[in-house]
Amino acid sequence: MAREKTMGILIKGKPVADSITEELIEEVIKLKGKNILPKLGVVRVGKNESDLAYERGALKRMAKCGIEAQVFEFEENISQKDFITKLTQINGDKSVHGILVFRPLPKQIDENAVKHIISPEKDLDSFSPVNVAKVTEGDETGFPPCTPTAVMEMLKYYGVDLKGKRAVVVGRSMVVGKPAAMLLLKENATVTICHSRTNDLPGICREADILVAAVGRAEMVDASYIKTGAIVIDVGINVNKEGKLVGDANTASCIEKASMITPVPAGVGSVTTSVLAKHLVKACKLQSGI
Amino acid sequence: MAREKTMGILIKGKPVADSITEELIEEVIKLKGKNILPKLGVVRVGKNESDLAYERGALKRMAKCGIEAQVFEFEENISQKDFITKLTQINGDKSVHGILVFRPLPKQIDENAVKHIISPEKDLDSFSPVNVAKVTEGDETGFPPCTPTAVMEMLKYYGVDLKGKRAVVVGRSMVVGKPAAMLLLKENATVTICHSRTNDLPGICREADILVAAVGRAEMVDASYIKTGAIVIDVGINVNKEGKLVGDANTASCIEKASMITPVPAGVGSVTTSVLAKHLVKACKLQSGI
Repeated sequence: MAREKTMGILIKGKPVADSITEELIEEVIKLKGKNILPKLGVVRVGKNESDLAYERGALKRMAKCGIEAQVFEFEENISQKDFITKLTQINGDKSVHGILVFRPLPKQIDENAVKHIISPEKDLDSFSPVNVAKVTEGDETGFPPCTPTAVMEMLKYYGVDLKGKRAVVVGRSMVVGKPAAMLLLKENATVTICHSRTNDLPGICREADILVAAVGRAEMVDASYIKTGAIVIDVGINVNKEGKLVGDANTASCIEKASMITPVPAGVGSVTTSVLAKHLVKACKLQSGI
Repeated sequence: MAREKTMGILIKGKPVADSITEELIEEVIKLKGKNILPKLGVVRVGKNESDLAYERGALKRMAKCGIEAQVFEFEENISQKDFITKLTQINGDKSVHGILVFRPLPKQIDENAVKHIISPEKDLDSFSPVNVAKVTEGDETGFPPCTPTAVMEMLKYYGVDLKGKRAVVVGRSMVVGKPAAMLLLKENATVTICHSRTNDLPGICREADILVAAVGRAEMVDASYIKTGAIVIDVGINVNKEGKLVGDANTASCIEKASMITPVPAGVGSVTTSVLAKHLVKACKLQSGI
């Protein structure tokens, strides 16, 4: 008997981002009709290259949606005290509906000392403990971080039913793994969280109907991790030995068994700025009592 | 070949509670030597029977440890406004180091409106979103709810190594399931969270090296849910059809396959007041800068 070879399809981020953007364009027009001008504040300390790249993408996305954006740039060596003063000012500005702070912050700034400063209703990326708690509770008034929300948008757009399905999340970070687990749980998936200390990781991953790879190791996940027909959401962004941008999954290998897999680049990463814009509009509506 | 029959052992809560209490007695003596008098505030609205039973147990435990305790009792029909005023006063009292609020509160009081009132460092049972966030983050300065902490104390006392083991938590409540999952994850278990929508629950439970049952259905978990040699922690407290107090697991059935199982009563439930006392001492030390 010949070995069955399932060939999955690549599910890209662009159509998801476009669909979210289209909805937001409509919503922003309505808000402007009520004299509400949605505005994003981007807080960046220093000139980290990946921050700058993300910022360019975010500004483009906001412009597309009709959302104003202002970048607050600070010197790499700004003191914690000065940073707190500035962030408090930005948070107090009523024209700014939502704030994105690039993290990690430089060493002299203790994130625990600043994470309470942004009002939860302006905190678009789950910096505030109030939003961390809300996401854990499944309270939809909260703001989960943008990346796991992008994972959920991908699954929704491509019609993946999660109820009762087994989801395995590889990675337990506060920016992806844990909130992704909570969001999947909220959609009634049965969720397993794996990490660096997990025994037989490939075996556990093969239990997954939906596998979310957020481990930060270039192309670690291959076909041996995949149950035939599974859906693979690759959150990793790594540079491999050849200097090429790759995910946590080896796409070519996984696609032999997966029914769908997100590519890297052009996968989940392409959706995050749309999620940021969506969170901004949500924040703007919350603050305007709409 | 005869069917192998593993007979597990019952692991009771009392030795765990006694061991914690002994440690606390020493610590409280030291605190009193520094003129610090640890004190618990118990906030109870109405006279719910199970609240009263827990309160009696808690007061006894505090007395054993040398911890002072004061009960603040309010009428079942207290208004939200009055409750907020009272809780704010209690929280502001410097002689009270930790507060336990019996939940659920009556309908006229919105928990979302009061959960921010208790200072995180006095919040012994994870009412405050700050503690929910800390538990999710794995930040040990936080206070997880007492019941999942009691689960961890049981596992620690009976020498269960969690690293790399598969833990399955049945139930996703904010008082047990989710915080238990986060605490197990912190100890490097690979954690699966199941719930009412999980498909093939017995099959998934059979993957568990450690099974935590927190589902609230009398004796639902039987031997068919248990992998040979697994450890079963039964968090349920239910009254069965015969009016008998039982757990979520059918102990007699499970013990045929499990290596260890906690009984109900006399299991996890017996440890929670010791955890409350331990949290109170931790809170007292935090507030005294020790």
